[in-house]
Amino acid sequence: MKICIIGCGAVGLYYGARLQKSGADVHYLLRGDFDAVKSDGIRVKAPDGNFHLPWVNAHRKSSQVGVCDLVIVALKATANNSLQDLISPMMGESSRVLTLQNGLESDTTLANLFGAGRVLGGLCFVCLNRTSPGVVENFHLGSVAIGNYRKEADVFLGELAELFEKSGVECKTYDDLRFAQWKKLVWNVPFNGLAIAAGGVTTDVILESENLRKLAKFLMDEIIDAAAALGMEIKPGFADYQIEITYPMKAYKPSSLIDFLDGRPVEVEAIWGEALRQGQAAGVAMPRLEMLYGLLRAVCSKS
Amino acid sequence: MKICIIGCGAVGLYYGARLQKSGADVHYLLRGDFDAVKSDGIRVKAPDGNFHLPWVNAHRKSSQVGVCDLVIVALKATANNSLQDLISPMMGESSRVLTLQNGLESDTTLANLFGAGRVLGGLCFVCLNRTSPGVVENFHLGSVAIGNYRKEADVFLGELAELFEKSGVECKTYDDLRFAQWKKLVWNVPFNGLAIAAGGVTTDVILESENLRKLAKFLMDEIIDAAAALGMEIKPGFADYQIEITYPMKAYKPSSLIDFLDGRPVEVEAIWGEALRQGQAAGVAMPRLEMLYGLLRAVCSKS
Repeated sequence: MKICIIGCGAVGLYYGARLQKSGADVHYLLRGDFDAVKSDGIRVKAPDGNFHLPWVNAHRKSSQVGVCDLVIVALKATANNSLQDLISPMMGESSRVLTLQNGLESDTTLANLFGAGRVLGGLCFVCLNRTSPGVVENFHLGSVAIGNYRKEADVFLGELAELFEKSGVECKTYDDLRFAQWKKLVWNVPFNGLAIAAGGVTTDVILESENLRKLAKFLMDEIIDAAAALGMEIKPGFADYQIEITYPMKAYKPSSLIDFLDGRPVEVEAIWGEALRQGQAAGVAMPRLEMLYGLLRAVCSKS
Repeated sequence: MKICIIGCGAVGLYYGARLQKSGADVHYLLRGDFDAVKSDGIRVKAPDGNFHLPWVNAHRKSSQVGVCDLVIVALKATANNSLQDLISPMMGESSRVLTLQNGLESDTTLANLFGAGRVLGGLCFVCLNRTSPGVVENFHLGSVAIGNYRKEADVFLGELAELFEKSGVECKTYDDLRFAQWKKLVWNVPFNGLAIAAGGVTTDVILESENLRKLAKFLMDEIIDAAAALGMEIKPGFADYQIEITYPMKAYKPSSLIDFLDGRPVEVEAIWGEALRQGQAAGVAMPRLEMLYGLLRAVCSKS
């Protein structure tokens, strides 16, 4: 399977390298890190063993890549206005696009551009950090979960899941991708958001402060209420479970906080803005999310 | 009238100097700025004329001041745990205490310490900035408004108002001090709060951002709802009026933002914490204030 990875931050590098190492024909579209990756390849540090791919198919332009079976989008959602130009030259008759981006808007953007039937979405449950160009560290193997944008049976989805599994990445498939995205927001909205808005704090600080932990729980409740109003019933206890699984992460920096601290754009619209707009459109007030979203917009536009 | 000013930040310096200049026997209790004020006095820059008081009654300890007719408290509310020790040595049989502090808790603290009948509260509607020890700038003459902690007729209140007026300070008296405090919160809660939580922005930035202006209005509505639940009916249109009067202030730094940027404690409990607790106790949810309060606690404890 010929695959092109767009966006060579932590997510793109990591899954691209895994898939390449297991035999897939992987290409990488890069800008800032092109020279580094072209000359030294990709290095992955992971709990199941470090590895180095000295030679990778690095490209500056998608026209050089040619038509692919699968384009994996691992750009920040803040760069989504470049998706059409980047992806179009690689799309043939049966090409598919998988977005591994955070939040709610990217799959719909891709569906509008290339047709809903071509789009898959995936969620990454993993702790990754790109420490320098072409170098990524994985602290926890984690898993990915993929689904079709349309809730339809699809042979490709199963093939792709097998490919991930073969590369050493645990992969689940979802019938309802949107439901999975909202469940992920139950964690991302409070922890990514409060980490920035509370002045740049790690997840352990949020959990140790009765005050911030309470706000995290309230935000989770708003997301769960919105999901319910949108027809997705998240089980009772899911919010408490999200708090529980965060304790072992210790002083973890959520990805949005890392972006913020490094001066990169934060996916404010894809995560908080879209959740608020969709929840409010379904009649849920979400005053706490509205407050957090408003502050994040202001704080992140200043950085 | 023998008066002692406690706390020689902008508010203490300014009103102390005004009262002294007009003939009152004013004493100042100082710590950090004692040497500067003792040797060079107080300088006031104001629209109605600059003036210099080369000699002032500066003291390090309240026992050196002796019994006063009036103690004016202009400390930050974050230092209220020192009020008993500071004030007690100056209290005689008929001594009174006036707090010019922000927020809701200081007058109650003083009433608990010295008796409700002795306590007056005042609100300062003024733009002041202490630029260096003993030096204060006033950009707008403004006014003060004073009232009894108990809603009772009181000859002293009228005398004190006259004293302020004689010193060039417009002074209104309130029958209901608490009502006036809540009305002031309608401005202080959003503008002081968002200025810090949105990443250190001036009032013009809050007004220019549709997003932040909307949050400011929502916060005002929560304060107005809480006041109503506490039996204080704030007129419709008051929130819009608060927005209106803020436009001419331009790039104004609310006092809490100045404290925050200078690394001084911010009066998080006196302003946001007390408003939230009193509103929630009266059955008003105040989710946006709760969010803002929680974030301010976190952000301000980090600075």
